[in-house]
Amino acid sequence: MSLDVVALAAQLIGCRSVTPADDGAMALLADTLTGLGFSTDRIDCGPDGSQTPNLFARLGDKGPHLCFAGHTDVVPPGDGWVHDPFGAQCADGKLYGRGIADMKGGIAAFVAAVALLKAERPLKGSVSLLITGDEEGPALHGTKEVLPWMMENGHRPDFCLLGEPTNPDRLGDVIKIGRRGSLNAWITIDGVQGHVAYPHLADNPVHRLLPILSDLTARVLDEGNAHFAPSSLQVVSVDVGNTATNVIPGKATALLNIRFNTEHRGDELVQWIRDTVSAHAPRAQVEASISGEAFLTEPGAAVAALSEVVLRHTGQVPRLDTGGGTSDARFIAQYCPVAEFGLVGATMHKADECVAIADLQALVLIYRDYLEAFGL
Amino acid sequence: MSLDVVALAAQLIGCRSVTPADDGAMALLADTLTGLGFSTDRIDCGPDGSQTPNLFARLGDKGPHLCFAGHTDVVPPGDGWVHDPFGAQCADGKLYGRGIADMKGGIAAFVAAVALLKAERPLKGSVSLLITGDEEGPALHGTKEVLPWMMENGHRPDFCLLGEPTNPDRLGDVIKIGRRGSLNAWITIDGVQGHVAYPHLADNPVHRLLPILSDLTARVLDEGNAHFAPSSLQVVSVDVGNTATNVIPGKATALLNIRFNTEHRGDELVQWIRDTVSAHAPRAQVEASISGEAFLTEPGAAVAALSEVVLRHTGQVPRLDTGGGTSDARFIAQYCPVAEFGLVGATMHKADECVAIADLQALVLIYRDYLEAFGL
Repeated sequence: MSLDVVALAAQLIGCRSVTPADDGAMALLADTLTGLGFSTDRIDCGPDGSQTPNLFARLGDKGPHLCFAGHTDVVPPGDGWVHDPFGAQCADGKLYGRGIADMKGGIAAFVAAVALLKAERPLKGSVSLLITGDEEGPALHGTKEVLPWMMENGHRPDFCLLGEPTNPDRLGDVIKIGRRGSLNAWITIDGVQGHVAYPHLADNPVHRLLPILSDLTARVLDEGNAHFAPSSLQVVSVDVGNTATNVIPGKATALLNIRFNTEHRGDELVQWIRDTVSAHAPRAQVEASISGEAFLTEPGAAVAALSEVVLRHTGQVPRLDTGGGTSDARFIAQYCPVAEFGLVGATMHKADECVAIADLQALVLIYRDYLEAFGL
Repeated sequence: MSLDVVALAAQLIGCRSVTPADDGAMALLADTLTGLGFSTDRIDCGPDGSQTPNLFARLGDKGPHLCFAGHTDVVPPGDGWVHDPFGAQCADGKLYGRGIADMKGGIAAFVAAVALLKAERPLKGSVSLLITGDEEGPALHGTKEVLPWMMENGHRPDFCLLGEPTNPDRLGDVIKIGRRGSLNAWITIDGVQGHVAYPHLADNPVHRLLPILSDLTARVLDEGNAHFAPSSLQVVSVDVGNTATNVIPGKATALLNIRFNTEHRGDELVQWIRDTVSAHAPRAQVEASISGEAFLTEPGAAVAALSEVVLRHTGQVPRLDTGGGTSDARFIAQYCPVAEFGLVGATMHKADECVAIADLQALVLIYRDYLEAFGL
């Protein structure tokens, strides 16, 4: 059985699956995989059990087990498109559509790769897909919740390949082997409001906040390490909202974000923030949220094999990188080694998102050869 | 000719002269003063020459020349009154009404004091009144503009007594012999917006603002001096308005106020702020506004005589003070020595503003005796 990658990608683009909508994307994928012999499970999660569409599909029941992960949801199209964002138009050797780079094209390429290899010979081992419809949204009930289900049902993969668009400019630029962690902290300081002419009767919360933020920003969290850039703390907002020049305000807030590498754990950083705040403002409130811990997949045989396959089809040695934002790999890394390689992301989240059709076809071959290299 | 202070104060309360309204207050005062033999001039100022009602009235043309200064405008009544804010109700020995303490009562007492002394004997020297209808508002076209007119027309006083409610609790508490200066500064820092995952591509304006505000608040401006409390800098607002935790913002603003004593001049402090800002953020913008310079009337014969008269009628030695907010004395001090003494200000700007009728009557005697002590 053969499967055209452009045709499948176009069908996926036609589903208007702007988070949290699905618009048939998951069913289309499940049907296609069923046709290839996969067993499929819908693991829809959320407060009422049906809000976030998730799919797990597996072909084979032996090892080695390679899992391909991804998401069918896309960000809103926004304005400024020349091409229909859901029209899957081909022009100038490119396929246009919201989500084609991030990351319906990657999913289509993986399915086509399995179909291609399977048309040549029976697969050894197992290949699975872990697909969520909530990666661009809160991501609370997607990959994060499917993974425990997989563990409980005997589906722990030996390795996971996430198909995010890792390449900034050209196919073959970058394999991601880790991601920095991210946390947010909201600091609220209640002072005592008063007239500026009588500062001794007031307690200016801004004056308490300043040394806190100075201490927090003064610390060099680390110098980076072999695989990671230095960790970075950014104060992204400070707000008081007082326009009366003769009034000492009663409240001040600050919002900060830390992108941290494997030299830190989120809870240790949160504790450091709490300690720093309480040293200057004992009654201040700190709310913190750790979006994800930093992780690294040490470059071993699986990553080396992926690099070799990428080189073979693109002519360049991919950089092993850990930069950029977060992805669902932060959840997967808690269960098995994970790397990320997909299309060129230059147009992701922008108007006229597109990929080169030649890249899409090359990615099918990369994924096919990687399945083989992995022992399938 | 005798004049009842409560009756005149009640008539003034009946004028709803909430800044910038006048509602006949100035005409009432001018008519009363004309009846006492004063020559009166309306020096209405403002962009179209008629917006701010101001009155200058003088009786006599020889020296010594004592000027009484004040304002007929009042702050809005606000909510929570038991008594009609413009009804001039007497109850429990008190006269109620918006502005009776701040400072229609002081004006009525001064006019009654002149009438009382004049009924006894002809006045020596000169007595004048400098009354504005814009002290509670922007104060741009009131006392500040009448003073140059007085100078040009041969009305420079030897001493000025401002009738603001200087006493916190009891008549006789406080004579003000100076006021701190006040300035505001608005700092705006334009950075470069970006994603928190790529801080090297952004320029976080909050991180530039923090050391500026730390430097500004760290400086001990002074330790105060014989007549003044220490100067005080307060950061009254910092605002960014960014709620996206993954975005480094493009702009941050701060607003600060300095209340400064006679150890400083406003323009020197503004220059220090500008220098501090540009050291950390060369492209930042600083807008500054000096509301008034600090001033001190050195306690000499005129202040000593006022203290003695206050002691005689209240049984307490008034404290010579320079605390609190600003007043129109900041303008007057540029032309002649000025002190401030009036009623009890405990209810000023509040609901059910009131003064004791006994205080009003005692203030008439204090002002009468002070006219005499000054040589009139």
